[in-house]
Amino acid sequence: MSEPVLVEVLRGDRVESVHRGAVVVAEADGRSVLEIGDAAQLVFPRSAVKSIQALPLVESGAADALGFGARELALACASHRGEAAHVECAASMLAGVGLNADALECGAHWPFNQDAMVALARSGKQPSTLHNNCSGKHSGFLCTCRHMRLEHRGYSGFAHPMQAMLREAMQDVTGARHDEANSAIDGCSIPTHAIPLKSLAYGFARMATGKGLSPGRAAAAKRLLAACMAEPFFVSGSDVLDMPLMQAAPGRIFVKSGAEGMFCAALPELGLGIALKCDDGAGRAGEAMVAAVLSVLLKDDLELSAKLAEMARPAVPSRRGVPVGQIRPVGALSRPDCP
Amino acid sequence: MSEPVLVEVLRGDRVESVHRGAVVVAEADGRSVLEIGDAAQLVFPRSAVKSIQALPLVESGAADALGFGARELALACASHRGEAAHVECAASMLAGVGLNADALECGAHWPFNQDAMVALARSGKQPSTLHNNCSGKHSGFLCTCRHMRLEHRGYSGFAHPMQAMLREAMQDVTGARHDEANSAIDGCSIPTHAIPLKSLAYGFARMATGKGLSPGRAAAAKRLLAACMAEPFFVSGSDVLDMPLMQAAPGRIFVKSGAEGMFCAALPELGLGIALKCDDGAGRAGEAMVAAVLSVLLKDDLELSAKLAEMARPAVPSRRGVPVGQIRPVGALSRPDCP
Repeated sequence: MSEPVLVEVLRGDRVESVHRGAVVVAEADGRSVLEIGDAAQLVFPRSAVKSIQALPLVESGAADALGFGARELALACASHRGEAAHVECAASMLAGVGLNADALECGAHWPFNQDAMVALARSGKQPSTLHNNCSGKHSGFLCTCRHMRLEHRGYSGFAHPMQAMLREAMQDVTGARHDEANSAIDGCSIPTHAIPLKSLAYGFARMATGKGLSPGRAAAAKRLLAACMAEPFFVSGSDVLDMPLMQAAPGRIFVKSGAEGMFCAALPELGLGIALKCDDGAGRAGEAMVAAVLSVLLKDDLELSAKLAEMARPAVPSRRGVPVGQIRPVGALSRPDCP
Repeated sequence: MSEPVLVEVLRGDRVESVHRGAVVVAEADGRSVLEIGDAAQLVFPRSAVKSIQALPLVESGAADALGFGARELALACASHRGEAAHVECAASMLAGVGLNADALECGAHWPFNQDAMVALARSGKQPSTLHNNCSGKHSGFLCTCRHMRLEHRGYSGFAHPMQAMLREAMQDVTGARHDEANSAIDGCSIPTHAIPLKSLAYGFARMATGKGLSPGRAAAAKRLLAACMAEPFFVSGSDVLDMPLMQAAPGRIFVKSGAEGMFCAALPELGLGIALKCDDGAGRAGEAMVAAVLSVLLKDDLELSAKLAEMARPAVPSRRGVPVGQIRPVGALSRPDCP
């Protein structure tokens, strides 16, 4: 495995660190528009596929029965930063089915957002499962279970019907096998499955266009991506790139980060799905890579493309806030005509 | 630049992410005992060379005049975690020369240690420059300036006499050129210089043995490394591998991490210096690499070597604290007979 260097981290004008990775852009018929590195490599998509994992929440009728709007749906697809509005939204989703933080099986951690962490500490409280970045997804699972009158306890386990529904949705959308043999456990305790990177790009082209999916699933997929694009704060938070990327072109760009340098994305207007993985798992590199590839794919919109290219090249600041370096896409990602 | 894969991150039994890097082990005469990857590559050593940067504090007589013991000297070589004892020690070093946090030019950030961050937030206070992981090093600079009756303001700038002293010490110990042409700015606002990785291994063999250094410098070097090995908490903190690595064999292992996947280390009994850099800047990989190479070099001490090998293979936990993966050294670092 030797993926190409796609991101450099400069200190002054010298390269201090490099990040390798692979990128696939695909259409809903499975044709690749762009492949950089090994498109067939198996990756754990982690949180980048939460929107696919939220399909049963909509398809079961639970979301409608509970009166969920775009915010709740976005939070069900989110890796949130533990900010107050995220925590309140998850708590209210659970309250709607008579549950609370105790039912979440994702574990607790301090909010990823620094201001939220400081505020929680100042309140004298400890972090709960609601502060877990996956609490919206898990709340969605619990709402689905309760609506379907399934015993919700143990919903995170491989053998639970909730996980069987997630495997069916993932397999249908991506076309990739999901079983015990390619499973491992995610940070939030549910199974995650190693599947080809190109299957994820293909899957998100189908999520964005509905092509090849059943009518009900196609509608649910479009509704979930639309909710994320309408409420980018609820899918991410104030201090990660997912939010400004989606805000840069409302309704036109869907992106979702995952742990270990994963990103899935979609451009509905072009019918394209995108999946990428940074070899070493660095989030900073995944962010630069996704911004760069979006800039390339949206090159016909000069202003937007320039804005995205700028977001792919953030400054590296000193502790006094002075820029002392820069992150930049290189190689295939630095050539604006790559597809 | 294509360094070998030296660390794998597993989820279940599958590789999820990989880290590449280079390692050099050298003797004080400059001879390499072990080279993995490009030993001549230029790297910014960042905080891994703080013990060299503390030489003027001892050589100027400031440390003795101020009555510094092992804790103060260790803190001057530290990337600390902002725990209470770190902050108090830095404040007391500054008080000894009539200064306080306002004189530090490193910038402020919340403590890296989570418990310390929560405690500071609960106190209602904001982080100060004393919480900066480099505040001990900067306090050492200020003590040196005051003892030498130098104007201390601007001590972090390239043209200040303090920085000229640091360049002289770094150049003398490592044999590598240090000037404006290979300089950039570190996170704590002082210059950092891109020098060959092998020069750092060579330099730390000299720091540990005193060979090739002037008698006064050799004594200062040994005193600083001894202080770090005697007070590993003050060089690092409760939640990074530097401390348990040095505690595993008191007085026999010196290690110091730096940002962007750097490590410098020394084994005084074997007369060896070690320098390594993870390509992508990941601290988790630098930790696994340094523990693995120490395990290999100390293989004659079976118990210690096994303990270090274990530290090179930490579990990856879920948010509920269940092991769901593992970090492990591979390739040249996985062969116990590599040198």
